[in-house]
Amino acid sequence: MANKAQVLYDFTAEPGNNELTVREGETITITNQGVGGGWIEAQNSRGEVGLVPEDYIEVREWFGVLLSSTPTYFSISSLSAAPDPWGSTAQSHPQAYQGPVFSNCCRIYLVEFSRVVSAPSQMGEVGPVWSYPEAQLDCVVADPKKGTKMYGLKSYIEYQVIPNTTNRPVNHRYKHFDWLYERLLDKFGSAIPIPSLPDKQVTGRFEEEFIKMRMERLQGWMTRMCRHPVVSNSDVFQLFLTYKDEKDWKTGKRKAEKDEDVGVMIFSSIEPEAPDLDPIEVEQKCDQFSRFTKAMDDGVKDLLTVGQEHWKRCTGPLPKEYQRIGKAFQNLSSVFTSSGYQGEATLTDAMTSAGKTYEEIAQMVAEQPRKDLHFLMENNNEYKGLLGCFPDTIGVHKAAIEKVKEGDRLVAASKITPQDKVTMAKRVSTMSYALQAEMNHFHSNRIYDYNRVMQLYLEEQVKFYETVRTVVQTTLYKETLPHIQKTHF
Amino acid sequence: MANKAQVLYDFTAEPGNNELTVREGETITITNQGVGGGWIEAQNSRGEVGLVPEDYIEVREWFGVLLSSTPTYFSISSLSAAPDPWGSTAQSHPQAYQGPVFSNCCRIYLVEFSRVVSAPSQMGEVGPVWSYPEAQLDCVVADPKKGTKMYGLKSYIEYQVIPNTTNRPVNHRYKHFDWLYERLLDKFGSAIPIPSLPDKQVTGRFEEEFIKMRMERLQGWMTRMCRHPVVSNSDVFQLFLTYKDEKDWKTGKRKAEKDEDVGVMIFSSIEPEAPDLDPIEVEQKCDQFSRFTKAMDDGVKDLLTVGQEHWKRCTGPLPKEYQRIGKAFQNLSSVFTSSGYQGEATLTDAMTSAGKTYEEIAQMVAEQPRKDLHFLMENNNEYKGLLGCFPDTIGVHKAAIEKVKEGDRLVAASKITPQDKVTMAKRVSTMSYALQAEMNHFHSNRIYDYNRVMQLYLEEQVKFYETVRTVVQTTLYKETLPHIQKTHF
Repeated sequence: MANKAQVLYDFTAEPGNNELTVREGETITITNQGVGGGWIEAQNSRGEVGLVPEDYIEVREWFGVLLSSTPTYFSISSLSAAPDPWGSTAQSHPQAYQGPVFSNCCRIYLVEFSRVVSAPSQMGEVGPVWSYPEAQLDCVVADPKKGTKMYGLKSYIEYQVIPNTTNRPVNHRYKHFDWLYERLLDKFGSAIPIPSLPDKQVTGRFEEEFIKMRMERLQGWMTRMCRHPVVSNSDVFQLFLTYKDEKDWKTGKRKAEKDEDVGVMIFSSIEPEAPDLDPIEVEQKCDQFSRFTKAMDDGVKDLLTVGQEHWKRCTGPLPKEYQRIGKAFQNLSSVFTSSGYQGEATLTDAMTSAGKTYEEIAQMVAEQPRKDLHFLMENNNEYKGLLGCFPDTIGVHKAAIEKVKEGDRLVAASKITPQDKVTMAKRVSTMSYALQAEMNHFHSNRIYDYNRVMQLYLEEQVKFYETVRTVVQTTLYKETLPHIQKTHF
Repeated sequence: MANKAQVLYDFTAEPGNNELTVREGETITITNQGVGGGWIEAQNSRGEVGLVPEDYIEVREWFGVLLSSTPTYFSISSLSAAPDPWGSTAQSHPQAYQGPVFSNCCRIYLVEFSRVVSAPSQMGEVGPVWSYPEAQLDCVVADPKKGTKMYGLKSYIEYQVIPNTTNRPVNHRYKHFDWLYERLLDKFGSAIPIPSLPDKQVTGRFEEEFIKMRMERLQGWMTRMCRHPVVSNSDVFQLFLTYKDEKDWKTGKRKAEKDEDVGVMIFSSIEPEAPDLDPIEVEQKCDQFSRFTKAMDDGVKDLLTVGQEHWKRCTGPLPKEYQRIGKAFQNLSSVFTSSGYQGEATLTDAMTSAGKTYEEIAQMVAEQPRKDLHFLMENNNEYKGLLGCFPDTIGVHKAAIEKVKEGDRLVAASKITPQDKVTMAKRVSTMSYALQAEMNHFHSNRIYDYNRVMQLYLEEQVKFYETVRTVVQTTLYKETLPHIQKTHF
């Protein structure tokens, strides 16, 4: 069954190794998917045949995914998140996520991810759920340090990553996080949305503010990955957190790069111990998730837009205005002082004090967004990234469902055997279980995250209004004096 | 001593009355200032001589003012206040002004305003002050009613004016207030700044909002006039407040219009029982007041500018933004509700509640300026109007001072007698006493007004921040619930 595939990256053949040189964007025909070792055999438009690394291409045809036990790599190449317009800073996840507790599970079905992951998914109240570890993995990203190499010619920033399992720090540069991201995307991207890392940046990447912001966003990303029972339990993720020395890291890296159980393998390797789902039910679930993630994406983007505008107003024109009010009060007060009239001091003192208060308020207004809106924005930004992964994940499912729907026609046309059709339906059912488990993971995290961030936002807002009230009231007490003493002037 | 004068208004001679027809803008030569009865004799450019009402012309030469005991009318024609850019509403003066108490006066000098006003000025701690009445005159402007005349062809709004002396309401239309303003300006304008009335308006003057605003501004203007011991004690002002019937009003009106003791007469009729001031001291005082009023004018305008911008922001973009934040929360909440995930209700209820709270805040923000900024703005607007009168008042003084400085030269040139020179210096000294008393009146009112309005502003600001804090906190309590219950989802 010959499939067309698109070349994702340039690959130059090593002479004498039976390899085929291909260029990004080129279309090739797969002539043998079963060569193994991360390679496929393909033919280019000039008729030349040779081996190409399977993660350098994207298969366009779904038969392979649904039928082969060693399917070609299905890259989620459009998965990169939209550019981050939210140019802000400081974030931390003060509380480690405890993971949901499924005390009321009524029916438990084990869906063994035989080779890919050891974490089974279960049926909770809400349907299939991943099995969460007893102890929640977590890590701290801290202590960014500037390092150099090539005798000081090249500089880089190295972060400490300290997992709560070993409590032993390992060092990583941004490019290592990026490497991890690529590995996780390769391995789990078809089933699990792997959010993009914080933006790459070339200029100004040694500035303190930028380093702090990147560190805190890497922390957020790592926390989210740690929370995911499938991701956090994977060899590559564990390697990243707990490698013993440089040699261990290099060995593990090579091994991870050669991992064959990537892409849609995550589905083909699942052997669910659960009844097959009805294709119509699968499609309904898939459509429901699609609608939800689309609607949430719109809602999140809307909140980000208005939040950004609010941020700008709160850090720009609004405090400037409070400052000008403050200056106007103080200016009028100093004019009053120049009147030469007696009994003026109490009023002018109070007006100066009121003026200073409004300058204080200006500063408080300008600083407030970093204390509350920031976390709301960072959280929504993270979710924007996550939600941006769903169209591809859901696309994988929809394409599979379409193929299954064609099953009868394909059998009639003798393109596949009746047994093939059964296998396809089974595989789609498994994919749906995985998607449902993932959606439930997403939902429980979402509830936790939004609850935390809304609470923090409102708490900080209460503090803000309380503080402003207090400073104005303090000024008012001073201001009240001349009123009481007015018979004396 | 023939002076040139400028004609301010058209005047058509009644045949057989020895009158002279003159046109606005025409220059005439005064041939006899001593005819009395509110008339002067003048010659036009065609050589015609006749009587002209003295308040229809403006004398350009200062000798008349300083030497004659029946000087010509000196109109403060440029006295109209700048147009009011502050298009806002509701104001009231809840507390009647009690007047300053001069318990610590050390030296009392009576400066008898023999014919013009009965109120003498005294020397208090701060220098010359007007003598304030025991009981402070006050009035309420209320109950605007639409009336018609000419069988319903013409409509007008009539206000009730109720003075605290008689407690008996009299009715007045805006044009009556305007008539009163013109009379007060004629009579006192050279010595006392008479602020303009709220703007005339032709279109939309029957709209409820406009009527309310005008009434409250008329109230503010009347309160300020009532507070002034010289103005409030004048016949014309008393007539306005306490006329018995239509006939009484008409008679009083005619009498007031024929009043000869107007313009700079207020100075020429003063016989101060105080030592003459040194001309240099007079000039210094005058310059000091000039600098102060100019600086305060700048300060007030600055506050008005920033206040207006703040008003716009608080009633426009800012609440719109809070509303959008509120909508974004509620929208995201309703998306969450559609997830189909269990245990969502507590979070979504809390988010909806937070959303509604921010919509509430939007409304509170938009309504707040009417509760605090409004009064600050109205007060500063009143002071802008008052301060706009000072350049003319001070100009009268400066011109007089210049003439006195020329005294020696004029005596040497035999243009005036040495006795004339002494009279001029005496008159200027009297003018300075009056200006000082007026400045002290201005200062004590200013301290009272700014104290009151700043206090009100800060009080309302405290209430505002307190209310916002409370509504956010209420939402926070609801929001806290899902966090506590997180083990159950």
